[in-house]
Amino acid sequence: MENNIRIAEMQIGQAVQGFYLVNDIRIRVSSAGSPYLSARISDNTGVMDAKVWNYSGPISENENGKVVLLQGEVTEFNRTHQMKIERIRLATEEDHYNLEDLIPVAPIDRQDALSEVFEIIGSMEDDDYRVFCQTMLNRHHSAFQSLPAAKSVHHAFLSGLLMHTLNMLRAANFLAGLYSEVISRDLLLAGTLLHDFGKEKEFLCSELGLVTDYSVPGKLLGHLYMGAVEVAEMANELKMPEEKSMLLQHLLLSHHGQPEYGAAVEPQCAESELLSLIDLMDSRMEIYAETLADTQPGSFSGKNFGLGKAVYRHK
Amino acid sequence: MENNIRIAEMQIGQAVQGFYLVNDIRIRVSSAGSPYLSARISDNTGVMDAKVWNYSGPISENENGKVVLLQGEVTEFNRTHQMKIERIRLATEEDHYNLEDLIPVAPIDRQDALSEVFEIIGSMEDDDYRVFCQTMLNRHHSAFQSLPAAKSVHHAFLSGLLMHTLNMLRAANFLAGLYSEVISRDLLLAGTLLHDFGKEKEFLCSELGLVTDYSVPGKLLGHLYMGAVEVAEMANELKMPEEKSMLLQHLLLSHHGQPEYGAAVEPQCAESELLSLIDLMDSRMEIYAETLADTQPGSFSGKNFGLGKAVYRHK
Amino acid sequence: MENNIRIAEMQIGQAVQGFYLVNDIRIRVSSAGSPYLSARISDNTGVMDAKVWNYSGPISENENGKVVLLQGEVTEFNRTHQMKIERIRLATEEDHYNLEDLIPVAPIDRQDALSEVFEIIGSMEDDDYRVFCQTMLNRHHSAFQSLPAAKSVHHAFLSGLLMHTLNMLRAANFLAGLYSEVISRDLLLAGTLLHDFGKEKEFLCSELGLVTDYSVPGKLLGHLYMGAVEVAEMANELKMPEEKSMLLQHLLLSHHGQPEYGAAVEPQCAESELLSLIDLMDSRMEIYAETLADTQPGSFSGKNFGLGKAVYRHK
Amino acid sequence: MENNIRIAEMQIGQAVQGFYLVNDIRIRVSSAGSPYLSARISDNTGVMDAKVWNYSGPISENENGKVVLLQGEVTEFNRTHQMKIERIRLATEEDHYNLEDLIPVAPIDRQDALSEVFEIIGSMEDDDYRVFCQTMLNRHHSAFQSLPAAKSVHHAFLSGLLMHTLNMLRAANFLAGLYSEVISRDLLLAGTLLHDFGKEKEFLCSELGLVTDYSVPGKLLGHLYMGAVEVAEMANELKMPEEKSMLLQHLLLSHHGQPEYGAAVEPQCAESELLSLIDLMDSRMEIYAETLADTQPGSFSGKNFGLGKAVYRHK
Amino acid sequence: MENNIRIAEMQIGQAVQGFYLVNDIRIRVSSAGSPYLSARISDNTGVMDAKVWNYSGPISENENGKVVLLQGEVTEFNRTHQMKIERIRLATEEDHYNLEDLIPVAPIDRQDALSEVFEIIGSMEDDDYRVFCQTMLNRHHSAFQSLPAAKSVHHAFLSGLLMHTLNMLRAANFLAGLYSEVISRDLLLAGTLLHDFGKEKEFLCSELGLVTDYSVPGKLLGHLYMGAVEVAEMANELKMPEEKSMLLQHLLLSHHGQPEYGAAVEPQCAESELLSLIDLMDSRMEIYAETLADTQPGSFSGKNFGLGKAVYRHK
Amino acid sequence: MENNIRIAEMQIGQAVQGFYLVNDIRIRVSSAGSPYLSARISDNTGVMDAKVWNYSGPISENENGKVVLLQGEVTEFNRTHQMKIERIRLATEEDHYNLEDLIPVAPIDRQDALSEVFEIIGSMEDDDYRVFCQTMLNRHHSAFQSLPAAKSVHHAFLSGLLMHTLNMLRAANFLAGLYSEVISRDLLLAGTLLHDFGKEKEFLCSELGLVTDYSVPGKLLGHLYMGAVEVAEMANELKMPEEKSMLLQHLLLSHHGQPEYGAAVEPQCAESELLSLIDLMDSRMEIYAETLADTQPGSFSGKNFGLGKAVYRHK
Repeated sequence: MENNIRIAEMQIGQAVQGFYLVNDIRIRVSSAGSPYLSARISDNTGVMDAKVWNYSGPISENENGKVVLLQGEVTEFNRTHQMKIERIRLATEEDHYNLEDLIPVAPIDRQDALSEVFEIIGSMEDDDYRVFCQTMLNRHHSAFQSLPAAKSVHHAFLSGLLMHTLNMLRAANFLAGLYSEVISRDLLLAGTLLHDFGKEKEFLCSELGLVTDYSVPGKLLGHLYMGAVEVAEMANELKMPEEKSMLLQHLLLSHHGQPEYGAAVEPQCAESELLSLIDLMDSRMEIYAETLADTQPGSFSGKNFGLGKAVYRHK
Repeated sequence: MENNIRIAEMQIGQAVQGFYLVNDIRIRVSSAGSPYLSARISDNTGVMDAKVWNYSGPISENENGKVVLLQGEVTEFNRTHQMKIERIRLATEEDHYNLEDLIPVAPIDRQDALSEVFEIIGSMEDDDYRVFCQTMLNRHHSAFQSLPAAKSVHHAFLSGLLMHTLNMLRAANFLAGLYSEVISRDLLLAGTLLHDFGKEKEFLCSELGLVTDYSVPGKLLGHLYMGAVEVAEMANELKMPEEKSMLLQHLLLSHHGQPEYGAAVEPQCAESELLSLIDLMDSRMEIYAETLADTQPGSFSGKNFGLGKAVYRHK
Repeated sequence: MENNIRIAEMQIGQAVQGFYLVNDIRIRVSSAGSPYLSARISDNTGVMDAKVWNYSGPISENENGKVVLLQGEVTEFNRTHQMKIERIRLATEEDHYNLEDLIPVAPIDRQDALSEVFEIIGSMEDDDYRVFCQTMLNRHHSAFQSLPAAKSVHHAFLSGLLMHTLNMLRAANFLAGLYSEVISRDLLLAGTLLHDFGKEKEFLCSELGLVTDYSVPGKLLGHLYMGAVEVAEMANELKMPEEKSMLLQHLLLSHHGQPEYGAAVEPQCAESELLSLIDLMDSRMEIYAETLADTQPGSFSGKNFGLGKAVYRHK
Repeated sequence: MENNIRIAEMQIGQAVQGFYLVNDIRIRVSSAGSPYLSARISDNTGVMDAKVWNYSGPISENENGKVVLLQGEVTEFNRTHQMKIERIRLATEEDHYNLEDLIPVAPIDRQDALSEVFEIIGSMEDDDYRVFCQTMLNRHHSAFQSLPAAKSVHHAFLSGLLMHTLNMLRAANFLAGLYSEVISRDLLLAGTLLHDFGKEKEFLCSELGLVTDYSVPGKLLGHLYMGAVEVAEMANELKMPEEKSMLLQHLLLSHHGQPEYGAAVEPQCAESELLSLIDLMDSRMEIYAETLADTQPGSFSGKNFGLGKAVYRHK
Repeated sequence: MENNIRIAEMQIGQAVQGFYLVNDIRIRVSSAGSPYLSARISDNTGVMDAKVWNYSGPISENENGKVVLLQGEVTEFNRTHQMKIERIRLATEEDHYNLEDLIPVAPIDRQDALSEVFEIIGSMEDDDYRVFCQTMLNRHHSAFQSLPAAKSVHHAFLSGLLMHTLNMLRAANFLAGLYSEVISRDLLLAGTLLHDFGKEKEFLCSELGLVTDYSVPGKLLGHLYMGAVEVAEMANELKMPEEKSMLLQHLLLSHHGQPEYGAAVEPQCAESELLSLIDLMDSRMEIYAETLADTQPGSFSGKNFGLGKAVYRHK
Repeated sequence: MENNIRIAEMQIGQAVQGFYLVNDIRIRVSSAGSPYLSARISDNTGVMDAKVWNYSGPISENENGKVVLLQGEVTEFNRTHQMKIERIRLATEEDHYNLEDLIPVAPIDRQDALSEVFEIIGSMEDDDYRVFCQTMLNRHHSAFQSLPAAKSVHHAFLSGLLMHTLNMLRAANFLAGLYSEVISRDLLLAGTLLHDFGKEKEFLCSELGLVTDYSVPGKLLGHLYMGAVEVAEMANELKMPEEKSMLLQHLLLSHHGQPEYGAAVEPQCAESELLSLIDLMDSRMEIYAETLADTQPGSFSGKNFGLGKAVYRHK
């Protein structure tokens, strides 16, 4: 009975029936005096505004982030699609739907990715750095494997942080070899692994794991600082030598490269310089990947806010 | 026998005999093949280059920052004064000189200033903030009362940090009253007291207490971060509520006002906004005071590097 | 009969009857062919869009800024409130309403404030500056006590300029004492009093006194220049010494601090430097006050355009 | 007997005898204990450092800007030429020398240039603007025809302001025709004539007319403001209509084009926009002329500080 | 029967019948389920949104840029005019309408303008530059006389490039005389003629000649580069001396003046400096002309995006 | 007999005899009237000023860049070393010295490096790009293997361009695999190989191959443009498809990343974005390598001009 049409594939005029996530729920009264519900529905292919006219329940405003079963028709409003919902209810335990169709997830095998991270970390020769990284990985095991890397912009899906960090570890591993004259592989790998751990405290996530906002400490202190403070505390606990603790803190504080991009201090050693470039590279390449996926070969995308420009997908 | 002429008052051609600080000692061989000593001598009124020609001792290159007794003549080189030293030796315990004539010291009564700081802090109504500040003051008692506030630029003399902090506390105290609608007096005073405590780790000082350079952690981490980390640790120790700890850390991290001036995050509450302006105001007013002291009424100073411009002393 | 519900407290669906200010009146024909009136109504708590459908009078487009009596219902349009007016007419002399409920006014006692300004000015020791200020105050008495300090951004209410200037005079008075080594109290107070007098020519105001736009000279010349020119002329008239006239003109021309913020020249003496910081501080503190008044404790405001950022109201 | 070799043509080792300007006179004692005089000599082709060793008079330090007769030899010091003076005395009334060989003067016929300025101004159709300009020209007749246009950078020679203004008037005259659809010729010509009149008060000049420094009002108020204030006063005197006075003041206040280049307000009408471009164009073309005169065809100049770059003289 | 009311003159409520250009055609279904057509119509006086409700043909989405005959009524939507179309069909060969009323065209006589360009070019004394320019003019004859100079911003009408280039040639011709000391007239004229020839490849034009978008090479390479490459190739073909070819390429590459305005290199000779200023001047003057045409004397325009500010039309 | 002490290891007072490069030769007369020769001598470890007092030959000013045999003593002048030469003559064919000790050369095996470049290029799958690259490699074989990558800043030694390009090819090869979703390996490799080929025309080199200056076309057109033009011409010759030629030109024009760093256009496809980051990374890592080589572990370098900051070499 359900057709569960993917949001990215909906056409104006289509009848739709299926399970979707609901957010931004607002119940209001129209100028004609009748109540209606306004919300945003999503699956892992996209997002759409939705309305229930002459609304009488049963969803309330505090059900954001939950799964609903709905029936409706795709209409057009203000040059974009809008779902005109005719029936809606919360999904229950008896309902059969695939949560993975609703939540965007990194296109990686999570277990393989985690194993590879542990393997790279395990190959570090310096005991201090290796034990430090392993301790941190174990302590943050759960968040590290599921957190998105951002609220939007890039890697804004489950396990986005894992995917971003693994990609960067691979690049760091290779580049530490290419620039072995100036780069301490272990310091670079340690800084790469830990550079975004502070995001665990910076993000507010929905029940299903997506970033909905920044936390108050996230805004007032920032993930660079919070990550560095945890490094300082853990280094004390593990009695890591001062110089190594200081270098790791420096790599975290400087990984945005320039003060105007949010760096608390400028990179001042070869490893922090390289880490900031690897981070820039991986985030830009992911933005290209996400942007060009929606662009026809031989044409330009719309203006992307993360890059500040439109980009070309060649033939 | 000693004339101890003040460096600021020396004239070309004058014979000089007295006690001075010596720094930047270098022993070299001239192109004519004879050894000479090159150094910089200072008292609390100024600094001058000095040479000992045909040098045969007894000062060595690692006696920087010590007091010497010298005899010489003021000459001119490259349009500035230069001391041509004829005799020189290290001062000993038997020598009678006034150390305060050699080291620049803040023009305040140190005990009165400290008392006033304790009094203002003691007047805070919030127990958490007051106890926190008192504990920090006691722990850093010695450094806080003697440290300069900067290497150069402004308040670069003994007790400069105390003078700068006290001035700012007075301003904060008044302005908290003027803007009581939005300002929590206790938070503002606590942030003001602590804003530069991280400088204790940021500076390298000579034996006599002046800043000679920045420490390695000072450059790689910065005093904003190091100060905030200590606040975080101490807040844990004293079990200060999370919100208060976070706000204090935020005030320290943001007190430079803008990322391009070194702020790790931008001020985002009324107290951090005001603290950054009070800091800017007090440092600028001190630069004016130091600059205009050397400027004739009705004329302009030379270009000041801290302000980036020449300034006018009116009649 | 009238309920005069405050705009800030209106709820969707509520029936409203009362006196409000009307502005932006436009009479149009809908795509369905029927005439309607579109306008904005306000009281001293807020502003709301309003419509009269099937409009047949009696308000015309040139009645902006006047008081009307209306009856209608609060509806919702595009996620904000909109007043659907059923009846409307101009208020007459017989109507009883409180003009102060309609126009936002500074939260100060105007007479007390004026007295305090005169008192501070009266305490100046330099006859030239004091007489100059008193003459200017007398000449601009009326505008000075009623003008807003801005069109929006901060202090955009009746007597806003008086409130802003008095706050700044209090701060200047205190800080002149704190920095008495470099600050001439009389010059600073004179510059503070006069710094925004040019706004009288810069603003276009409605009949009831609020700023509706900038005047043509306001845009082509600016209030810094116009204020300084009047100082130059008055100084000639009063035969104030050249140096004092020049310094006062300099304080006015430079009080925005930096060319990119509108300063005609950069501050180049201690008093102009301090004045520009006091002005910055008072305008920022007022923006915080106005913004945080609408923000819940423990949460962030929306992005404020004057500050260029969202701000946090702590618990 | 005199050879009066031009400074630009002097060779190392040459014996020189002749009349030159002297400046920056300082009498000092060498480290060897003997007195010497240090100064800078110039003619209209260049400038050179000079020394008189074992100096015993008769020139004193307050004879800057005067003409001397000297005899000496061209030596080398620190990779540039230096005059080793053997004899020196002040020129007297009996001496025969050509002042024009010593002072750089604009390469124009001053009378012809003035006549052309008067002719262009005389051709203005609007009585208000024409009379205004003629009155200003008559009042400033003497300074306008002899003042340099700058201290250095460009047109830093006698009558430089006249040459700069005339060139700009010619360009304005032509461009007012080309853009007659948006440009009022009379307003543009009036603004062009008057745009730098404020420099008369901004400069301090030597007895012979060259700019030696900026005046105190020049620094604290600037020539844009001082020029505009005089326009405002004169317009009152001549009862010029408000709009015309305001426009002229606006052209003066905005002629540097952008706040970061010193404009007090941005150009906001077609004439002020065009005036700022003509001023930029004429000053840049003169810098090219002065720079390329010292550059070989087919090669680059040294870096020019006015332009911020080296420039190419093509073959 | 047709009234062909000019778009700039339409009033709400007016009945309209006539020929217009149609663009941005989209056929959609309303939320009420009925199809409608949305498009933009234009003539040489302006542009307006248009709707056909209950649409059943005969225009399809790929008829953009064609001429239609329509009948409808001017309504208001969202504070601007909107055409409610009742009848619409494509214009045919039998229809009588004036294409020049629909397409905006430069207000010049195209033949006179071309002749003047050829005449100025013909007056060049250097055979290399003259023959080069004449060859390029002949090769690009057709595009040069009809291309707009921009997509919007300025000269965005047929023959806009011709008008812009001719104006600049006139200015260059005059200014080459004024600055003959540093300017090679022939080089400046050649660079002026050719500076925007690369736009032929940078623009995508509609059938009727207006710029609808930038081409892919236009975005990836830019008209400065493409113009310079063609100069390099043609110079090889015509065996123009290396230095002259290089200079011409340099003038094209640098004519936007500064890297942040799109210059590939900075101007480094007098002619490229002057060319960049003439281009700036002519484009700004045209923006003023287009903006002030819609502004009442004595008032300000709306904010213009090309200039980044509102501008004043004086009385 | 020769000691050939390395310049980096010379001590004040040492007697030196050996072969060195000579540059900046100037023959002058001292203020005492005697001739002397001033020059700079170098080997592959450093550079030093040198003087020959009472000079009578046999080196003349146009022997720059040649090898000399000299005998002298290391003295000190102005706080740096200076060679006081007692004997000097040009090296002849009979002399035995090792040219490689005098000229700095990349620390790579040139043949191995070239082979690896050819191998990577040979592995490209796209025939157009591969053949294009091979043709360009063959045409520029000689310059490509010996040219420095810069005048100073980084890789300023023989074969520096080869070393820089090979490093970048290795990184590009790896990263094309890591980001294979968005990166065309062949396009990225082709752009990487060719990105600096334009430097062959941008540099002026000494007889022995080091960069002494920029050429005139190098300054007026830049290596980005000159490289892209050659690509355009060669693509025509080889009949490479338009899209591929355009993309390659785009990669060359944009490889400096941002206009303010010299990019003629911004990167607008994934490959140009990545190329600009790889170039930035390799040049920064080389600057770190060259800078840290002269820095003690646990301390900071002096301020590096390429990086704009001092950097830390950790323990």
